[in-house]
Amino acid sequence: MNRQLIARVIGLILRIEAVCMLPPLVIALATGGADRSAFVYAILLCAAAGLALGAIRPKSKRLQTRDGFVAVALCWVFLGLFGALPYSFYGYSYIDSVFETISGFTTTGATIVAAPSALPAGLQFWRALTQWMGGMGVLVMVLALLPSLGEGSVNLMKAESPGPISSKLLPRTSETAKSLYIIYIILTLTEAAALRIAGMPVFDSITTAFTTISTGGFSIRDASIAYYGSEAINWIIFVFMFVSAINFAVLFQVQRGQWRDALKSEELHVYVGLTFGVIALIAAELVLRCGQGVYESVAQSAFQVTTLMSTTGYATVDFDLWPNFSKSLLLLVMLVGGSAGSTSGGMKVSRIIILFKGLKRELRRILHTREVRPLTLEGARVDEGTVSSVSVFFFVYIVIFLLCGVVVSLEGIDIVSAFTASLTAISNVGPGLNLLGPTCNFSFLSGLSKIVLTIEMLAGRLEIMPLLVLLFPSVWKK
Amino acid sequence: MNRQLIARVIGLILRIEAVCMLPPLVIALATGGADRSAFVYAILLCAAAGLALGAIRPKSKRLQTRDGFVAVALCWVFLGLFGALPYSFYGYSYIDSVFETISGFTTTGATIVAAPSALPAGLQFWRALTQWMGGMGVLVMVLALLPSLGEGSVNLMKAESPGPISSKLLPRTSETAKSLYIIYIILTLTEAAALRIAGMPVFDSITTAFTTISTGGFSIRDASIAYYGSEAINWIIFVFMFVSAINFAVLFQVQRGQWRDALKSEELHVYVGLTFGVIALIAAELVLRCGQGVYESVAQSAFQVTTLMSTTGYATVDFDLWPNFSKSLLLLVMLVGGSAGSTSGGMKVSRIIILFKGLKRELRRILHTREVRPLTLEGARVDEGTVSSVSVFFFVYIVIFLLCGVVVSLEGIDIVSAFTASLTAISNVGPGLNLLGPTCNFSFLSGLSKIVLTIEMLAGRLEIMPLLVLLFPSVWKK
Repeated sequence: MNRQLIARVIGLILRIEAVCMLPPLVIALATGGADRSAFVYAILLCAAAGLALGAIRPKSKRLQTRDGFVAVALCWVFLGLFGALPYSFYGYSYIDSVFETISGFTTTGATIVAAPSALPAGLQFWRALTQWMGGMGVLVMVLALLPSLGEGSVNLMKAESPGPISSKLLPRTSETAKSLYIIYIILTLTEAAALRIAGMPVFDSITTAFTTISTGGFSIRDASIAYYGSEAINWIIFVFMFVSAINFAVLFQVQRGQWRDALKSEELHVYVGLTFGVIALIAAELVLRCGQGVYESVAQSAFQVTTLMSTTGYATVDFDLWPNFSKSLLLLVMLVGGSAGSTSGGMKVSRIIILFKGLKRELRRILHTREVRPLTLEGARVDEGTVSSVSVFFFVYIVIFLLCGVVVSLEGIDIVSAFTASLTAISNVGPGLNLLGPTCNFSFLSGLSKIVLTIEMLAGRLEIMPLLVLLFPSVWKK
Repeated sequence: MNRQLIARVIGLILRIEAVCMLPPLVIALATGGADRSAFVYAILLCAAAGLALGAIRPKSKRLQTRDGFVAVALCWVFLGLFGALPYSFYGYSYIDSVFETISGFTTTGATIVAAPSALPAGLQFWRALTQWMGGMGVLVMVLALLPSLGEGSVNLMKAESPGPISSKLLPRTSETAKSLYIIYIILTLTEAAALRIAGMPVFDSITTAFTTISTGGFSIRDASIAYYGSEAINWIIFVFMFVSAINFAVLFQVQRGQWRDALKSEELHVYVGLTFGVIALIAAELVLRCGQGVYESVAQSAFQVTTLMSTTGYATVDFDLWPNFSKSLLLLVMLVGGSAGSTSGGMKVSRIIILFKGLKRELRRILHTREVRPLTLEGARVDEGTVSSVSVFFFVYIVIFLLCGVVVSLEGIDIVSAFTASLTAISNVGPGLNLLGPTCNFSFLSGLSKIVLTIEMLAGRLEIMPLLVLLFPSVWKK
């Protein structure tokens, strides 16, 4: 393993993190907030560690697959540990600070902050910015900025990008990274402008755009999006959440005017069908069982389904008060998540498609005596290694979800709270049900639960394998 | 497909079912119960249908893999539909009757009977007998009795026996079936005798032995095993539940005195480790959190863990009142279930072992650049087709569990009740939590939920694929 190069990459990431803390510092200074010194200390520590690690000279610039996994996992751990410093210097416990930071970078949006509106503006901005940085990936950002990170830098991108198949949009990794970030920035600016026009204050529109396009879900308002009480704002956010959970490869085709290719995407069809199918089912229950009006039901259902399926996790209504059929469906879409190659979490629609095709193939095998056909997705053959990886992923995802749910239930909180906390963490959504529902926060949990959920959020964002690789002793041997 | 032969097998199964209704009829006549005429009519209908189907002459005696799957699925559906007749003629609705019968044959033990002790003795006996017939498999019974059912009758056994790998204990299918039934009968007789000696009435000991060795869990007492209030009886049942969830291939080795081979079984080690590990964890919580005595906690934990992991589902205490960590662990062992090739339900320990080995292999693949080693289980190589089948099974098991949970939540009952009902059905356990906990019954559910849960119990017992195969249109085409 190329340890020197990995250490160097971590150093680079920490220096970038220090630079990213400058805008919040400026805001803190401009508003005279109590978080000024917190950012100064954090930036100094982060930059110092970044420079120290950056001084290491690697013998080679080659990054293998496994190096990519290890580098990405460690970078994210360090991002969390150092990104927590501003909260920590401001006064939060270190465990709470790391929870909040990892919840930010992983775009989960679960929070230990009881009243985000009471935070100083600098921390509010940092909170939103961590989500924006984490959404498209911090290493992808590095690759976009510094094309010559090392040979095999594609392995960094592979390990950080969500989905079963990592496809390059353009021949060179750095160009792919750059084009992804261009779409990301365009979406963010467009949403911020639209929200501003719809009447949202400037600071709110920027932070909300950060946390929508990254499907993060942090809000600077205690009541989340419900605070604004605006239909227009709800629908604008609905559209951008929906778009952000589409595969960015599809958005890339749209940007290039290749509409026909974009609309052919198999994953897109299933994603759209699933989203609107569940919206219809829940709206029907709200109309028929709760006696709500049709428009109101459709609007509420559309927002909640999209916010949970895209794993954003904003609140407009307290869906914990909805009937149980609707709640069950919401849990299901949280598990599935958005599309591969998007900023969303969950298992990803394309994995579910591959798994269903695997099931169909198994049944054909039984019916037609061991006939084996290759699986296809988006018209291309899916190699057996990928099919097997997807199955393993599904298994380990469920196992982690269940085991962490068991650990959280040690709190003595009810089963629904414990297991939805675990689900919302691994799927990077944000809210759960009952004690951890959309109107609650995670601050009352024990340190053990917070640590477990923090690891689970990281596992969800990095799609598990990079973190599990760290547990293999051979990784640490010379 | 060999339709004639399949129809003939169904006819045979129905005639055997009619014969199996004779002992309950005798009991009904002897006790002068109100269920006498119910059994007479049921036997006549069952025998008539069996003779009609039996008159069909097949052109060939060849059964292919897919024929085996279809035959087993249809046999079980017919067993349920006709086995329900005694309950139905006695006065239960037909949906309730089929639910109870399938719950019996699949050895689930979920019941719609509010007070089993108020049932006439004939029906009490039939209820226990359905579990005993279903435990080792009805087609396996046929193969043991009628060796010359057709070429490829091994495909019937494969489709009915639980577990990822169907191993023959003896060269001939019929001999294997016979030796399985011999162990099954020995265990049943031993337990009945032990229970009798411990003070249980004769009728109770026989019916309880039927429902223990099959890991069914029906009891003729309203309070289930708690009724007897006997430590000795609890421990006897504990031992036999524990043994019945061991792979019968291992018990076969024990019977032949091959102790060393038996104790080498990898699945046995994991099964024993898991059972006693969870017993210890739950006992610890009962002692530390609930302040119970150590012996009492261990005894209660041992019984409940074993009854749920073996998917029997007897009640001695209301575990729904236990703290949430213990309840979560119980749900976990319900999902895992007992060993392959035993009478228990759930996913089976050996599948979980294969899945974990698949995960480990995937991590090795990442670490050592695409090195692919075959998986092994019990010292033998597991072929890739089996590994892939196990992954597909895990996926479809979770999908069915979740989707049926969503449908049951249409009842308006809470999420824990709805999803544990679905879990207990597909894992063939019996009790769930909350409204469907160990002190409750399923009679209040709607027809839709009962039908969904009935199908789910069948899916669990037949390990899903045989039922799904029926959904393929090509099966029904000429």
